[in-house]
Amino acid sequence: MNGFDTAGLLAAAARYEDALRRDDVSALDDLFAPGAQTLRAEGGSALVGSTHVAAFRRRRGGAPPRWLRRVHLRVVSPDDALTVSETERLDGGSGLQTQLWHRGPDGWQVTAAHVSGAGPAQGTPGAAAADPAADPFEDTATWRRPTEPAPLPAGSGDGPLRGVRVAVKDLVAVAGQRTGGGVPRWLQQARVNPANAPALQALLDAGAAVAGIAQTDELAFSLMGVNAHHGTPPNAAAPGRVPGGSSSGSAAAVAAGTADLGLGTDTAGSLRVPGSFCGLYAWRPTHGAVDTTGVLPLAPSFDTVGLLARRAAVLAAAASVLLPAPDGGPARRPGALLRSRTLTALAEPATALAVDAALTALAVQTGLPLLDVEDDVTTEEVRAWTEAFRTVQAAQAWAAHGGFLTAHPDALSPAVAARFRAGADVGAQDLAAARATIERTRERLDGFLARGWLCLPSTATPAPPVDSTPQEFEAARAGTLQLSTLASQTGVPALGLPWGRVGELPVGLCVLAPRGADRSLLALLDEVAPREP
Amino acid sequence: MNGFDTAGLLAAAARYEDALRRDDVSALDDLFAPGAQTLRAEGGSALVGSTHVAAFRRRRGGAPPRWLRRVHLRVVSPDDALTVSETERLDGGSGLQTQLWHRGPDGWQVTAAHVSGAGPAQGTPGAAAADPAADPFEDTATWRRPTEPAPLPAGSGDGPLRGVRVAVKDLVAVAGQRTGGGVPRWLQQARVNPANAPALQALLDAGAAVAGIAQTDELAFSLMGVNAHHGTPPNAAAPGRVPGGSSSGSAAAVAAGTADLGLGTDTAGSLRVPGSFCGLYAWRPTHGAVDTTGVLPLAPSFDTVGLLARRAAVLAAAASVLLPAPDGGPARRPGALLRSRTLTALAEPATALAVDAALTALAVQTGLPLLDVEDDVTTEEVRAWTEAFRTVQAAQAWAAHGGFLTAHPDALSPAVAARFRAGADVGAQDLAAARATIERTRERLDGFLARGWLCLPSTATPAPPVDSTPQEFEAARAGTLQLSTLASQTGVPALGLPWGRVGELPVGLCVLAPRGADRSLLALLDEVAPREP
Repeated sequence: MNGFDTAGLLAAAARYEDALRRDDVSALDDLFAPGAQTLRAEGGSALVGSTHVAAFRRRRGGAPPRWLRRVHLRVVSPDDALTVSETERLDGGSGLQTQLWHRGPDGWQVTAAHVSGAGPAQGTPGAAAADPAADPFEDTATWRRPTEPAPLPAGSGDGPLRGVRVAVKDLVAVAGQRTGGGVPRWLQQARVNPANAPALQALLDAGAAVAGIAQTDELAFSLMGVNAHHGTPPNAAAPGRVPGGSSSGSAAAVAAGTADLGLGTDTAGSLRVPGSFCGLYAWRPTHGAVDTTGVLPLAPSFDTVGLLARRAAVLAAAASVLLPAPDGGPARRPGALLRSRTLTALAEPATALAVDAALTALAVQTGLPLLDVEDDVTTEEVRAWTEAFRTVQAAQAWAAHGGFLTAHPDALSPAVAARFRAGADVGAQDLAAARATIERTRERLDGFLARGWLCLPSTATPAPPVDSTPQEFEAARAGTLQLSTLASQTGVPALGLPWGRVGELPVGLCVLAPRGADRSLLALLDEVAPREP
Repeated sequence: MNGFDTAGLLAAAARYEDALRRDDVSALDDLFAPGAQTLRAEGGSALVGSTHVAAFRRRRGGAPPRWLRRVHLRVVSPDDALTVSETERLDGGSGLQTQLWHRGPDGWQVTAAHVSGAGPAQGTPGAAAADPAADPFEDTATWRRPTEPAPLPAGSGDGPLRGVRVAVKDLVAVAGQRTGGGVPRWLQQARVNPANAPALQALLDAGAAVAGIAQTDELAFSLMGVNAHHGTPPNAAAPGRVPGGSSSGSAAAVAAGTADLGLGTDTAGSLRVPGSFCGLYAWRPTHGAVDTTGVLPLAPSFDTVGLLARRAAVLAAAASVLLPAPDGGPARRPGALLRSRTLTALAEPATALAVDAALTALAVQTGLPLLDVEDDVTTEEVRAWTEAFRTVQAAQAWAAHGGFLTAHPDALSPAVAARFRAGADVGAQDLAAARATIERTRERLDGFLARGWLCLPSTATPAPPVDSTPQEFEAARAGTLQLSTLASQTGVPALGLPWGRVGELPVGLCVLAPRGADRSLLALLDEVAPREP
């Protein structure tokens, strides 16, 4: 609604959450409209009258901590709005809070509230897949069996990641094993890795253990998680849907609960997309911030090694291990959360709405202002930068793997092979033009990030059905690339928050921060996610 | 809000409840606004988009039955309103439903809904008092020990009231026992009753059993349930509050669960008031419809014998036994539920609001239109009719018991004795004037009842604290008499529904029907209350 005071309402909602956390009953009283008609309903009954509500609050002695996941804002009039907030509790249970807000002389106040909760969902990823009789590693769409007799490398067994089981994407060197890259012919010709990739070694040194080697899309050049050779890993968070890729096996394993952490790569979205489809926290680091040694390249200008996790705290702890030593200063908070109407509208409408609810929750939970960017990008710009990215990616991918494709023309499925071969035809002039476009995109994004962190959908859709046609998969990939390649080509860190829901399907909210601000970005998780119980 | 379409909104809400009962998913779909923003949240999570909500409804296959108890309507704009509905389930559990309504081209539709439920409350009357070690009959403020060696009369043991335990007000003849009337000196001089009062006998013949003889206010001439001789029965539904009177012991016993049915009398409100204070269904019959033989009189022009119960079905079954044989025709439904703004405003504001929520629930649950009476009474009229009633009541009470008071000047507490003595001074002219006022009141009410059933607060306040001052008790009594004596002086039947809540204190909604329409009035209970599980 034009002229609606979204900022004021969200600020009031943020004050409410803050007061609730601190059990500041006076502040909570002030945020409820005084009067006999004000009401608060919980579970099965209502209290009517602000004095009864206030008395209840004093009796209660604090509410259990909760974290906002989605805030659905419905504007009724310039001075009236409803918020329906979905929350997560420490025990994995969830809650709902509906509030009717009115703006009067004392600002935005709640005139009616309805609170309810539910225990931990039966369908929680991990819980659902826990069939003690089944050996999860028999699922060869998710896990690749080691080919070498050497045992999987052991970690130090102690440290901040003690007990964390890692699903290592089959693009990352595991000592004593060969790297398969999602392609049987590649595995066949690969040499045994003499050492773990440094990123994996860092996790092991911090106490993590290798759960297994996780499947990947062919040479990581896909986003859907469909692999012609070993099949499509099941998506425990969205049954009947693809897991997304190319870190498909890592994501599927973490979603199913057979691993706690996914170590993967992200060139054009290969962590953020499966994170979005499988309902996982995902982190793509600043380009160059995490050592990619020992990792199969796809397009080195954009390649990164990053992480996936069900639990925010696991992601944050593991990322801290991979990042360069902290500079000692406190995490920087952004001045605002920024939304681009253009980028949001590139997602399908229900996804855009879902991500908007997640973004609103992030703003209310952190108290950060939520602003629309003023000089928004145009769809023409987005089309241009996506095309530019694809040009450079294809050229670099051909440079990396053209030799293998030439030597083994049938090793890849036709669709993926065609993506590589497109890179063979990129001329120097086209490449220079693409690089110039990318440079402009980088300047454009830096302009936004000077004012706040840019928030956008991680993917244009939730996970497509496994039985989608190739055309449908390609459409989903093309739509998502318009969103996902922005971080890729500008090198900024990206954090995927798995909070959106389209029906019951997860979809991610992606937050972009300035290059090098990974620790600040990850510090956001402390504000918005429960610590392990 | 002026011009708000309350009737249209309540009609839509009634259609919604009806469709929900029938699991008519198409009708439910039609009552939800189409579109991507429409949402439905339950327990801990939300579904966004009318198609997702519709799909959920088809998967669900019907909702458990529920009955509305309070509907809080909050008008936001001429085209927008919130309803928060409190419901009761078959298992005694409760539920909440918040709905944001918008009036668009297709009429009133829900744009956002939040549903939650809770199990049977721990504090349910009856459950709370169930200490198996304690003998409830040792509570002599509630129960009067039999003075005679004869056993309490047994019932037939079978029939529609099988298993129903009756708390018999100590104003009603119990065979083999004396009637105490709440006054030790009266009990002392009373003769042993040769037979049960016919009303009691009818209940016993239908299978009910006598739980015990329940205390009463002194000679029934009070409304608070405070008795200087045996104390104040505890109110299990409102701890620390009086139970109301004069059927105080019957109400306290039923609220505590040591009886299922209270057999009592109502002259000026002596069933409806304790029903309101103790959260019980209460029925005052059409004057003359139930035999008062064997019952101590107070003011015969107004005296009735009626009932109290926790469960609506028990009240309805017992009332059916007491009433003359049905004429065989179907129960008549009123054309509307009527509200008098003047009468509602005679209750204290929080009580008026609470009763309004109950009345709105009754309208939505039954689908009956809720109309404000057009030619409303004035506060002057009410003052006049209350005074007229008190004049006639006092004169008749003195006529009934003046002899006893003269013979035993110290038998009653001073406050109650003063009420009787006021009747000694009523002159013939005052009495004639009062009777004329009452006649006008009767015509006035009959005018209303020709258009619908009149709904008003059962009491002006919830139960006052037990430690109220005499002045506070007198103020509560005077306020309530303005409401309760309307049925008394016009002889119409009254049904008290225990649905209002001021904070956690119960307060009753009273429905008045035309004289003789008791069975139709009680048939309302079938529409609004769960059958016994």
